[in-house]
Amino acid sequence: MNAKTNPFETDLDKNAANFAPLTPLSFIERTASVYPQRIAVIHGTRRYTWGETYARCRRLASALAKQGIGVGDSVAVMLANTPEMVECHFGVPMTGGVLLSLNTRLDAAAIGFMLEHGEAKVLITDREFSPTVKAALATLKRKLLVIDVDDAEYAGPGERLGNCGYEEFLQEGDPAYAWTWPADEWNAISLNYTSGTTGNPKGVVYHHRGAYLNAICNIVTWGMPQHAVYLWTLPMFHCNGWCFPWTVAANAGTNVCLRKVDAALIFQLIKAHRVTHYCGAPIVHATLINAPAEMRRGITHRVNGMVAAAAPPASMIEGMEKLGFDITHVYGL
Amino acid sequence: MNAKTNPFETDLDKNAANFAPLTPLSFIERTASVYPQRIAVIHGTRRYTWGETYARCRRLASALAKQGIGVGDSVAVMLANTPEMVECHFGVPMTGGVLLSLNTRLDAAAIGFMLEHGEAKVLITDREFSPTVKAALATLKRKLLVIDVDDAEYAGPGERLGNCGYEEFLQEGDPAYAWTWPADEWNAISLNYTSGTTGNPKGVVYHHRGAYLNAICNIVTWGMPQHAVYLWTLPMFHCNGWCFPWTVAANAGTNVCLRKVDAALIFQLIKAHRVTHYCGAPIVHATLINAPAEMRRGITHRVNGMVAAAAPPASMIEGMEKLGFDITHVYGL
Repeated sequence: MNAKTNPFETDLDKNAANFAPLTPLSFIERTASVYPQRIAVIHGTRRYTWGETYARCRRLASALAKQGIGVGDSVAVMLANTPEMVECHFGVPMTGGVLLSLNTRLDAAAIGFMLEHGEAKVLITDREFSPTVKAALATLKRKLLVIDVDDAEYAGPGERLGNCGYEEFLQEGDPAYAWTWPADEWNAISLNYTSGTTGNPKGVVYHHRGAYLNAICNIVTWGMPQHAVYLWTLPMFHCNGWCFPWTVAANAGTNVCLRKVDAALIFQLIKAHRVTHYCGAPIVHATLINAPAEMRRGITHRVNGMVAAAAPPASMIEGMEKLGFDITHVYGL
Repeated sequence: MNAKTNPFETDLDKNAANFAPLTPLSFIERTASVYPQRIAVIHGTRRYTWGETYARCRRLASALAKQGIGVGDSVAVMLANTPEMVECHFGVPMTGGVLLSLNTRLDAAAIGFMLEHGEAKVLITDREFSPTVKAALATLKRKLLVIDVDDAEYAGPGERLGNCGYEEFLQEGDPAYAWTWPADEWNAISLNYTSGTTGNPKGVVYHHRGAYLNAICNIVTWGMPQHAVYLWTLPMFHCNGWCFPWTVAANAGTNVCLRKVDAALIFQLIKAHRVTHYCGAPIVHATLINAPAEMRRGITHRVNGMVAAAAPPASMIEGMEKLGFDITHVYGL
């Protein structure tokens, strides 16, 4: 028989009414249902269970929807690796919106370009980045809804720029908000810009399908056991943290947040929370290798690092082996 | 903006020429490339690496294609859990064909019905099941190409029924055969029949997409580390062994074959090959629990069992815990 007379062929499955689209939003729904009491996020003294994180994401989605955010609308974030950044990876796409993660190291001109070109309707921004963000907003021809994150773990300078604080904004949302799965798995979930080394930054869109598959394949490629404790040494704004905000939800793991790469703090968190996995560019691993030996004392469990680089230097791999860390090398998205 | 003016929307990705369809055939291609020397299959004294298994699958696909098997054609198998059965899970769909796995416990009338209704063009059959198969073939109105598997691990009665032996047939195929990925991820990969407790058996089709996702989600749900050593206590004819032939390829693991559930042999294989994972209905676990304690002696590593049942009895879970085995309960496909 040929393809046309194939008795097994059916169009039923291809009908959106008959199958579940691939979306990483399914991960948090499942994990919050199966493991509501497990710790989802640790940040300083803050702790959220998966039940709480899911409720906060639904509050965020609900509050954004009340502001008119819907399918295809972009919500920009200028955030460090905080619980709010984890929540935005779910709360924004729950509205059908697109998460536009800004690289916090860029200047006002680049940030202004991305807000304009990416058609951001809302900006959620951490107080630490207010000088850049203030200047960027001044370049725009239109007003955005600006929401401030004022993180207790950040004690440095920086002003509030916006209309309301993140916690106040969540209060406007419904923790039982009935969000819907995307109608099409090829719908955009996030928008990331290159840093624009030649000309203006270029936008790259992830769709729900790609984010789902990349997140799942992180688990398969790394051989991650369930309930990994994942340390955020990689910026979540960088390619959506290689999709790990969604991977950790699929894994029913724990996100250990980290505002900046600091060897002493990293080793302290690895010890305190028995961190099992982290990702980073070679420089992150080099920072750990070059740290004083006394910082590393007391780590008795296996730690798995993932490095992305065209070719990680042999000295780096050797150094990590001496630390007793297990390294997996990946490249590209 | 609404869905229609969404600037992120594109039809490019939906074009088959622009994206890779989901298929579990991608797993063996990758694992044979990355880990060609790792052991893929153990059966008695036989050993095949992933490089060898991939070459045998391509030989099978090539030889089947020479016989005219193509997209949508069904190839039936009446096989025990042997290397040939693993290979059929890849070699048959590499032609675009559909794997029709027959339940070796059924009678000639049921097997004949499935061969007829499933439009099998080829039958690959183990000598052990020749009485049933011979009677089933006699009920058909047409001739099939019949290929015999004569397994050295099987010393019992049974005749050869077919046109040629499996190993001879492989010799007709090209180990570097250029198979192609399915044009559509919704194409059928396998066909399984119910045992027909009411009326005639009903056919259930898996598509490439579903098989890919189920295989990957086995790894995620079980938290399987890479290179698992998987013991075939579950029949591969049963819902394609819950998709584990494809899971083990994705995991770059090892298939430890087993023709029948026998407690002494199972414990011996667990010890000899340091088996880490196996699946089974409650009766399989009960067989292990009820085995004499001396059979279990010498197993010092963690073994993970998966049980599928509406509600596994508490005594079974307790018994497995006493054995020191870690049990995961699943249900349904």
